[in-house]
Amino acid sequence: MFWKVIGMSAAFLTMFSFVPQIAKALKTRSVKDVSLVTLIQMASGVTLWIVYGIYLKDAIIIVANLVTLSTMLVLLNLYRAYRKKG
Amino acid sequence: MFWKVIGMSAAFLTMFSFVPQIAKALKTRSVKDVSLVTLIQMASGVTLWIVYGIYLKDAIIIVANLVTLSTMLVLLNLYRAYRKKG
Repeated sequence: MFWKVIGMSAAFLTMFSFVPQIAKALKTRSVKDVSLVTLIQMASGVTLWIVYGIYLKDAIIIVANLVTLSTMLVLLNLYRAYRKKG
Repeated sequence: MFWKVIGMSAAFLTMFSFVPQIAKALKTRSVKDVSLVTLIQMASGVTLWIVYGIYLKDAIIIVANLVTLSTMLVLLNLYRAYRKKG
């Protein structure tokens, strides 16, 4: 039980780690200092994790990375909207 | 072999995803638009992944998250150094 909580907390924290970045971008409407390469690299990486999860038939890998991919797509759209500013 | 390459590419891309952000911060010396909460949340998450990996005795989980944690610690130090700017 203890270790299940550790694992789930780890997954939860990393899976939603870009949510505060989304909130900050929405608030400041500026993404000047955010690395676009980091966003694209992370989005590509979690997409490959989803593909690998489908191959492994592992629902946890698929769902966790689908969540992260969703936040990355939101962030990439915000980046496109705000990149001209700053 | 094909799927091994997919899995390793996924791991490589996500593991090093903050390296371009480090490069950008070093170049611009500004982190104003970067979310500190995202950095702390990601660092905490990968730390818990390392703990969970030690429990599972899984070298891949441990090493991959140690690499990400190292990049997060570099980035948090850059954040501290540059946060007054901008």
